[in-house]
Amino acid sequence: MSHRTEISAYGEFGLIEHLTKNIELQNASTIEGVGDDAAVIDHFGKQTVITTDLLLEGIHFDLIYTPLKHLGYKSVVVNLSDIYAMNARPTHITLSIGVSNRFSVEALEEFYEGVYLACKNYGVDLIGGDTSTSLKGFVISVTAIGEVTPDKFVKRSSARKGDLICVSGDLGAAYIGLLFLEREKKIFLESPEVQPDLEGEAYVIGRLLKPEARKDIIDFFEQSGIMPTAMIDVSDGLSSDLLHICKRSGLGCLLYEEKIPIAEEMRLAAFKFEIDPTACALSGGEDYELLFTIRQEDYEKVSGNPAISIIGYMTEAAEGSHLITKGGNKYPLTAQGWNAFTTGRGQAPK
Amino acid sequence: MSHRTEISAYGEFGLIEHLTKNIELQNASTIEGVGDDAAVIDHFGKQTVITTDLLLEGIHFDLIYTPLKHLGYKSVVVNLSDIYAMNARPTHITLSIGVSNRFSVEALEEFYEGVYLACKNYGVDLIGGDTSTSLKGFVISVTAIGEVTPDKFVKRSSARKGDLICVSGDLGAAYIGLLFLEREKKIFLESPEVQPDLEGEAYVIGRLLKPEARKDIIDFFEQSGIMPTAMIDVSDGLSSDLLHICKRSGLGCLLYEEKIPIAEEMRLAAFKFEIDPTACALSGGEDYELLFTIRQEDYEKVSGNPAISIIGYMTEAAEGSHLITKGGNKYPLTAQGWNAFTTGRGQAPK
Repeated sequence: MSHRTEISAYGEFGLIEHLTKNIELQNASTIEGVGDDAAVIDHFGKQTVITTDLLLEGIHFDLIYTPLKHLGYKSVVVNLSDIYAMNARPTHITLSIGVSNRFSVEALEEFYEGVYLACKNYGVDLIGGDTSTSLKGFVISVTAIGEVTPDKFVKRSSARKGDLICVSGDLGAAYIGLLFLEREKKIFLESPEVQPDLEGEAYVIGRLLKPEARKDIIDFFEQSGIMPTAMIDVSDGLSSDLLHICKRSGLGCLLYEEKIPIAEEMRLAAFKFEIDPTACALSGGEDYELLFTIRQEDYEKVSGNPAISIIGYMTEAAEGSHLITKGGNKYPLTAQGWNAFTTGRGQAPK
Repeated sequence: MSHRTEISAYGEFGLIEHLTKNIELQNASTIEGVGDDAAVIDHFGKQTVITTDLLLEGIHFDLIYTPLKHLGYKSVVVNLSDIYAMNARPTHITLSIGVSNRFSVEALEEFYEGVYLACKNYGVDLIGGDTSTSLKGFVISVTAIGEVTPDKFVKRSSARKGDLICVSGDLGAAYIGLLFLEREKKIFLESPEVQPDLEGEAYVIGRLLKPEARKDIIDFFEQSGIMPTAMIDVSDGLSSDLLHICKRSGLGCLLYEEKIPIAEEMRLAAFKFEIDPTACALSGGEDYELLFTIRQEDYEKVSGNPAISIIGYMTEAAEGSHLITKGGNKYPLTAQGWNAFTTGRGQAPK
């Protein structure tokens, strides 16, 4: 058993100091970091992009199967993904946590290890935050700050009729990863002596527990001179997020099932649960891929990139939003993504 | 009984839309507000100042005696106070909330009414956030963003020996307000038929439930050409916050009890609890006044302002940090402010 230090041994200020003492600032834009009433940054003529996410134990994550280091990493990455989805570059984060005394200082150190690893991998500075006790549960609030050349950010609302719909990576795997972990949790709670059976499922579980944000796609846009016409990150599921672009842009869309990128590991795993892989891709969520539209004349530039799939195109609003199945049938797209207010995490795809 | 609408009637996206539909943006620096992956701001050559606070039910507030509108107002104001404490101007906030289904949409509307009132009074724009269900308790996370002319922000660490220590307003009242409300809560829980007795205590209770941030002091600095040498806002109590300035500036201080500003309402209220008003001022906290140091040559400029008290001066670190009592005794200052990790809110002054 490893050593356990009670949080109360440090006190509030001591704890913040302890957890932030090894911060190495990476950005010239960081004028003042942790340690005063507020942090100061300077984007030197660029515009500042800001997003924030709240992650609550029991709603957004389950500590039974989520290593704290992964949780720290993911808490940062899901926010950075929103910055990239604006075609911007993340530069800073603030991090607030509320923890009950069931957590030791060592546990928080693990969580911060993941936070710092994400900061290092994506070149962002942790510049502030708040640390508090909580009566129950682990509360995480991250605000990510980025920069963009004036007016070069990409919104959800600016897609145009005829634009091609593209998505990075592959979809649906995080949801299948969740199904595996929930199954093992159930078995463990019923029969603690049974060993977990996650053989061969590293890919889908990794997609859930340690997602990455698609910095490489933003790099590619810059290098190739591509300016997406609209963009969003896939956090609620392809259907739900594509419908956001449609609604905000005042358009409809046609999506081709056969074009939706699905990893082989995910397809095999979905069959074990007797679930349609396409349904997972449409409604699973937590993929943190970039979903964007481009002008048709950018087709050549994009089609050579194996990390990007062209999955459909934008239509008039009056034509509605539809999926063309492999069998040639046409179904209306519906938002079945995760809705935190009705079903909790991980609604089963229909 | 007023109408109750369940949060589930809206769903996550519907709820955010409902609660943010009446936002009126006030700042030219707001390029994109609520509704995309991230917000975009432009401080046009100024530096950006960022602070964040987590407020948790049962730790930072008690809904038994905290009206939701006041809570919304205070959640914003305590963050703006940190921006002013950098000698900067708040321009934007993001707000994330986690709520269990015991809250109705109407309850959240009340909370947001307070948020919008604070935004209006202080001229800041709400530009983003996150809304989630929580298993238990009300979770509030606010990030405040401000602007400052490059390098004109004021840190805690730049006080110099001989500088005068000043504080705005009066101290200790919020703590006494808390004692009253905790007393009435206890009586109510034991004997619900007893009517609350808060006659004449509006001032101290108002200081706790609906604090204001000292924008006027920052205006005064600008108009008078005063640049404080160090500044912090009084959230943990005068002792604790002054010791932050001492520690970070590598100095000591001498504080005069007779100079500490105490409201007459607070003095009378303290006597009802048989508590020393000075102890409340030193250790109570949640005053959200500005504590700052100025050069001696700025004495004339400050001494004419009735909202500012000069309460001591900075010394060499070797001389320590002391309070000179009205009786002429000298005691070391100790940080007895609220420590969220040892005693919860509202530690009794010694």
